[in-house]
Amino acid sequence: MKTATDQKATSLETVQSSLLNMGLLDGLSSAQFNDFLQQAVQKTYPKGFVLFAQGDEAEAFYLITRGWVKLYRETLDGEEAVVDVLTAGHLFGETAIFEEDGYGMSAEVVEEAEIVSLPLGLLKQLMAESPQLSMNMLKTMSRFRRQQDMELEHRTLQNASQRIGCFLLRLCKPDAKSPIRLNLPYDKTLIASRLGMKPETFSRALARLREDTGIRIQGATVEIDGLNQLSGYSCSTCSSSYPCKDL
Amino acid sequence: MKTATDQKATSLETVQSSLLNMGLLDGLSSAQFNDFLQQAVQKTYPKGFVLFAQGDEAEAFYLITRGWVKLYRETLDGEEAVVDVLTAGHLFGETAIFEEDGYGMSAEVVEEAEIVSLPLGLLKQLMAESPQLSMNMLKTMSRFRRQQDMELEHRTLQNASQRIGCFLLRLCKPDAKSPIRLNLPYDKTLIASRLGMKPETFSRALARLREDTGIRIQGATVEIDGLNQLSGYSCSTCSSSYPCKDL
Repeated sequence: MKTATDQKATSLETVQSSLLNMGLLDGLSSAQFNDFLQQAVQKTYPKGFVLFAQGDEAEAFYLITRGWVKLYRETLDGEEAVVDVLTAGHLFGETAIFEEDGYGMSAEVVEEAEIVSLPLGLLKQLMAESPQLSMNMLKTMSRFRRQQDMELEHRTLQNASQRIGCFLLRLCKPDAKSPIRLNLPYDKTLIASRLGMKPETFSRALARLREDTGIRIQGATVEIDGLNQLSGYSCSTCSSSYPCKDL
Repeated sequence: MKTATDQKATSLETVQSSLLNMGLLDGLSSAQFNDFLQQAVQKTYPKGFVLFAQGDEAEAFYLITRGWVKLYRETLDGEEAVVDVLTAGHLFGETAIFEEDGYGMSAEVVEEAEIVSLPLGLLKQLMAESPQLSMNMLKTMSRFRRQQDMELEHRTLQNASQRIGCFLLRLCKPDAKSPIRLNLPYDKTLIASRLGMKPETFSRALARLREDTGIRIQGATVEIDGLNQLSGYSCSTCSSSYPCKDL
């Protein structure tokens, strides 16, 4: 059984700065902010740790400060559908306050992660008092909705190679100096699932992307000579232009 | 140029009952509700009417009371990505209050529609005053987010025939008496786009669905002998079981 490491005592300042940065608590009174801070628990979780399973009673929501977490659902046939793979700065589990049947999906750590958990009950209570908090939450959800819209659009209009190109572009800073060298954030099987591809489709599409754009991939390392060719390749079939707002 | 028919004078009661039913305004004071009612404008729009285009300045949001409306985006290449096709009881355009660049997509009437338009400015103003209104809005968005999650899941795990089966199941009342006879709500080309398929993929998948489940399709009429076979066929590869909550 994988266990998590409690770091509450050692990192109050880190937690505070993470909560300030996440945007959700902007505009709250100091007392309200401190309520969250007091109940925040930061832990380090190993790869493979399941934070919650679909249908579990929902008591907390989570903020990632390091590492990667996979959100997924399972079908009646036992197949797994990856909903998203999130990293530092992302929230998850917060929409469970609108659900009656617990969490709507499962969450598993896929690369060692530092995660702050926060009580859903407090979020619900403060939302009834603070229009600002509701407004922040709406902004967060509306950004997420745009990303999902975009994802659906890509599944319809981009081919598999273009979708891998888009995934790589999102890992690069738009003003990075060429040539760009980056590490794939998690293993290729999971990247394939995240992009809604079977592993063999992913391999073929990756080979074609290398041929078409000249990028080089060795293990988990990717080298890109310039972003223009990659963005021209992927973004022509997208309704946003590069660099996109949500990047 | 397609024009809309103003029906404000004749249908105040209809508009009132539509606004009461949509859920978004639940729990508002009578004065707040009346503010919306006074500024609501109901019109009948012909097929092909474009309500707004992506990037247009956002001044209104809309409630459909009859007919069908397509939400879509266009890529740099000029391809169209259908985001959703909505009917009576659905809201659209409301998330534009969180956007800085106007509407995030375009909206076009695809089957003659009766639509109530409501001012976004008033929505924004009342949301700053009423935590209840923000909460209603969050519930609406959270339901939409679940539907999008499900849509993405289906694109990953269901084959094209299963996705058409799911589309048909959503048009049936779960307790309808067999055999069920229904009309396709809009033309097959648009159904294909809505499901993210090319027309030729749609035709092949529809033929396979008929063979596998015994449903009969003649023009726009569909006959289904029983829902069990269709739900067994489509829902085994889904993380919800039939009948699904959002049906």
